Amino acid sequence: MDTPTKYAVFGSGSWATAIVKMLCENLDEVGWYMRSTYIKEHLLKEQHNPSYLSSVEFKTSQLKLSNDINDMAAYADVLIFVIPSAFIHGELSKLTADVKDKIIVSAVKGIMPETGKLVGEHFHDVYDVPFENTAVIAGPCHAEEVALERLSYLTIACADETKAKAIAKTLASDYIKTSTSDDVVGIEYAVMLKNIYAIAAGIAHGLGYGDNFQSVLMSNAIREMKRFIKKRHKMKRNINDSAYLGDLLVTGYSLFSRNRMFGNMIGKGYTVKSAQMEMNMVAEGYYAAKSAYKLTKKSEDIDKLPIINAVYQILYEDKDPKRTFQKLTDKLD
Amino acid sequence: MDTPTKYAVFGSGSWATAIVKMLCENLDEVGWYMRSTYIKEHLLKEQHNPSYLSSVEFKTSQLKLSNDINDMAAYADVLIFVIPSAFIHGELSKLTADVKDKIIVSAVKGIMPETGKLVGEHFHDVYDVPFENTAVIAGPCHAEEVALERLSYLTIACADETKAKAIAKTLASDYIKTSTSDDVVGIEYAVMLKNIYAIAAGIAHGLGYGDNFQSVLMSNAIREMKRFIKKRHKMKRNINDSAYLGDLLVTGYSLFSRNRMFGNMIGKGYTVKSAQMEMNMVAEGYYAAKSAYKLTKKSEDIDKLPIINAVYQILYEDKDPKRTFQKLTDKLD
Repeated sequence: MDTPTKYAVFGSGSWATAIVKMLCENLDEVGWYMRSTYIKEHLLKEQHNPSYLSSVEFKTSQLKLSNDINDMAAYADVLIFVIPSAFIHGELSKLTADVKDKIIVSAVKGIMPETGKLVGEHFHDVYDVPFENTAVIAGPCHAEEVALERLSYLTIACADETKAKAIAKTLASDYIKTSTSDDVVGIEYAVMLKNIYAIAAGIAHGLGYGDNFQSVLMSNAIREMKRFIKKRHKMKRNINDSAYLGDLLVTGYSLFSRNRMFGNMIGKGYTVKSAQMEMNMVAEGYYAAKSAYKLTKKSEDIDKLPIINAVYQILYEDKDPKRTFQKLTDKLD
Repeated sequence: MDTPTKYAVFGSGSWATAIVKMLCENLDEVGWYMRSTYIKEHLLKEQHNPSYLSSVEFKTSQLKLSNDINDMAAYADVLIFVIPSAFIHGELSKLTADVKDKIIVSAVKGIMPETGKLVGEHFHDVYDVPFENTAVIAGPCHAEEVALERLSYLTIACADETKAKAIAKTLASDYIKTSTSDDVVGIEYAVMLKNIYAIAAGIAHGLGYGDNFQSVLMSNAIREMKRFIKKRHKMKRNINDSAYLGDLLVTGYSLFSRNRMFGNMIGKGYTVKSAQMEMNMVAEGYYAAKSAYKLTKKSEDIDKLPIINAVYQILYEDKDPKRTFQKLTDKLD
């Protein structure tokens, strides 16, 4: 494949909208698939996404909008999926177009709960996409700050460095700096795990733990993340690179992170159900905790992952947050 | 020496006051030296420090207070110095008592600007204290949260593990968990460097950089800290342990850190002098930046420490914060 020129984003949430904005800085045309016909019509009429990052104005002449996932998949060389992990399996069930020669980029932030597979693995297994054509986009990057054009750094991971560089170049701009990596698997797991740790940070805050404890929790979280990822995919990586540690910090320390907010409500005494109803959405880390637990339970390593284990027990086994965290504090250092 | 039982704290700031409080949980008598006769009298009359952590009430029967540094040094087996690095050289010039058989603990958070020496090195060189009798106390620990008895973790580093454990046990309580380390030198440098990075975080905030950038800055800071420390004292350490990374985070992310506040004012356009006058104090990181720069300049490694270099240039070479940080952003990833 020559340098890919046709990019399409699949999804219409805040992170999808931010990525479309980045691409619009460099491309004459950006494909954008969304399920909702309402959002598509609104974009065409009002030049912005009605639900997310609505301050971002698009030139509609630059956008190729579609509600048909197969049309969009046929159009693009590079398919960037930005659909929450809980819904991607359902969305992809509609995808019948031949994508085996496309570059598949995941910005999904989690594994597919139905199968326990990473997005790249799914496309490899179901659509015959070679692994060297799968990539991952990682932050640390709040979409809201992209809307404000505040300087942010992205890492694009792909086993094929040429492809990683091409995608990185297409996303870079005055306010986006990009770098590349070959750790597709490790970075996708990191992106998933950070949401569990953000829930843990929220629970701690809700229970009344202070900043001193929070920093101990994050310091343990990055060590736990390193152990988890190493077990799944052993290779040389610096866990303190921005795609791992930076992304953990921006999520764990953000008061606006939905995962942290969800945890905070749990810590303050909401049940899981009532917190989800109150937030009118499900935090990514909720699914991630289950996926991480299931992956790890098999290998009996869950004892070495005390934070993930604590969050899992609180969310899925109805364990008391206060007592669970008291026990957790003895396992941290 | 048998297990030491007589502890004395030297200093009367917030961190000194917090350490006295911790010791009072376990000891019948705690020595406490302070320069100010006013603070001593106030403590005796009102049972609290008038200037710092004034909500903490002490039983005066438990305190052995003195304004004479030599009396206090003669009294105690374990001497804990909690005097800002800018003032410790002056204070120690009064210390003439024989302390060569004492255990010297530094909670100074910096090297002595006059000599470029760590506190342990100073006691070794000037008072013939063997290195295995020198120790360091590190957080992550805001003194204010100790006052509130919020769960906090401390690390006590000493080359002699028995001594580290004895001190750790004496500081531990319901709300203080302690662990030990043998990395005296590395941890003392880490404690010093984090204040420089907190100034950097403050400058970034003052200049309008957002959370995305902040997390990239911290992710680069911990890698820079690792390089710095490795150069000064090579040994096996996990830079993500709480004493290094945790302490960096609690300082870098705290809105109440004086170092971060100082940086914030610089970023917003205050001169160094006017920021110091406005704050009515000098942030530790101000001295630390100079010390770190001087230590590193010699070995021509300053290019590998872009954050320290940027802070130094802004504070000491009158470089424009905005342009200096613009250049810095190209060196981070």
